[in-house]
Amino acid sequence: MNRKSIAVDMDNVIVDIEVNWINAYEKAFGVKVAREAMLGIPEDQAFPDPDAARSLLYKPGFFRDAPVIAGAQEAILKLQEHFDIFIVSAAMEFPNSLLEKHDWLNEHFPSIHWKNIVFCGDKRVINTDYLIDDHLKNLDYCQGTPILFSAGHNAGIEKYRRVNNWEEVLKLFYTEMVKFPS
Amino acid sequence: MNRKSIAVDMDNVIVDIEVNWINAYEKAFGVKVAREAMLGIPEDQAFPDPDAARSLLYKPGFFRDAPVIAGAQEAILKLQEHFDIFIVSAAMEFPNSLLEKHDWLNEHFPSIHWKNIVFCGDKRVINTDYLIDDHLKNLDYCQGTPILFSAGHNAGIEKYRRVNNWEEVLKLFYTEMVKFPS
Repeated sequence: MNRKSIAVDMDNVIVDIEVNWINAYEKAFGVKVAREAMLGIPEDQAFPDPDAARSLLYKPGFFRDAPVIAGAQEAILKLQEHFDIFIVSAAMEFPNSLLEKHDWLNEHFPSIHWKNIVFCGDKRVINTDYLIDDHLKNLDYCQGTPILFSAGHNAGIEKYRRVNNWEEVLKLFYTEMVKFPS
Repeated sequence: MNRKSIAVDMDNVIVDIEVNWINAYEKAFGVKVAREAMLGIPEDQAFPDPDAARSLLYKPGFFRDAPVIAGAQEAILKLQEHFDIFIVSAAMEFPNSLLEKHDWLNEHFPSIHWKNIVFCGDKRVINTDYLIDDHLKNLDYCQGTPILFSAGHNAGIEKYRRVNNWEEVLKLFYTEMVKFPS
């Protein structure tokens, strides 16, 4: 059987970067921003001081300590039974995140082999059958079928098939789109 | 004009990893291996103690301090005038090399934007029009046209179009294969 490949983004797809950012901002500046404040706008704009918020992305440990998105671990394990899963993160924008994201994956997704990890800048050179991502800047240019994973900043966008959580990803791949031999 | 894309490997293509490895081995173990000893065999097998040689790859600084392959800088600048150049390195096998390779590129190839850097494991998900690489394990599965860059370990292989140096790369792209509008 020729296995289909799925590229899976990290931030906002398997990494709960919204919660992480809110917590880091509160810890650094004493202001707790509500998750709902991120709806429909770029994440940094949800904070009282967007420059200060962005500066947190360059702090050692920011990416290493982020929590996992609910359901991602179980769903990835399930998908790996029938698909080649590649984790594809535009990590190159934050060089200090490279090793942190690698170590984070090793801790939380030990079933992902190093051969299946891609840290890049522009995702348009990545060719997999599917891309699950929260950003149009990635989905618009991907070579496979784009799937929009819900995040605050992409609320309201109807351009691509949307999944709101990992339960819906599994439903999409296992009941709607793909038939497997028994 | 629709620009073609070229993926360029790092080790043995723009990084002189053979010389670097020989120097590091001599410094660590006091034995200088001749470059010719690497001809036609895996690099680590050229050293008296292959396990010791491989251990050097995990030492901090190994990738950061490596010299540039002759002619690569000038050739890449020239190619960038007409092609989209992506640096694609299977760096994920050596996690400590991730930041070192990023910093090395910033120092020696400042014209390469972070959006055009890819650190991966398996290169089969990378889709560019061309791949310049020294390893069959990458060229055999690439989605574009494979170009074999000469390294000691690939001596004698005739499977793909071979280039022996960056002068030959420029000749290939600028006189043999591609016509540009005047």
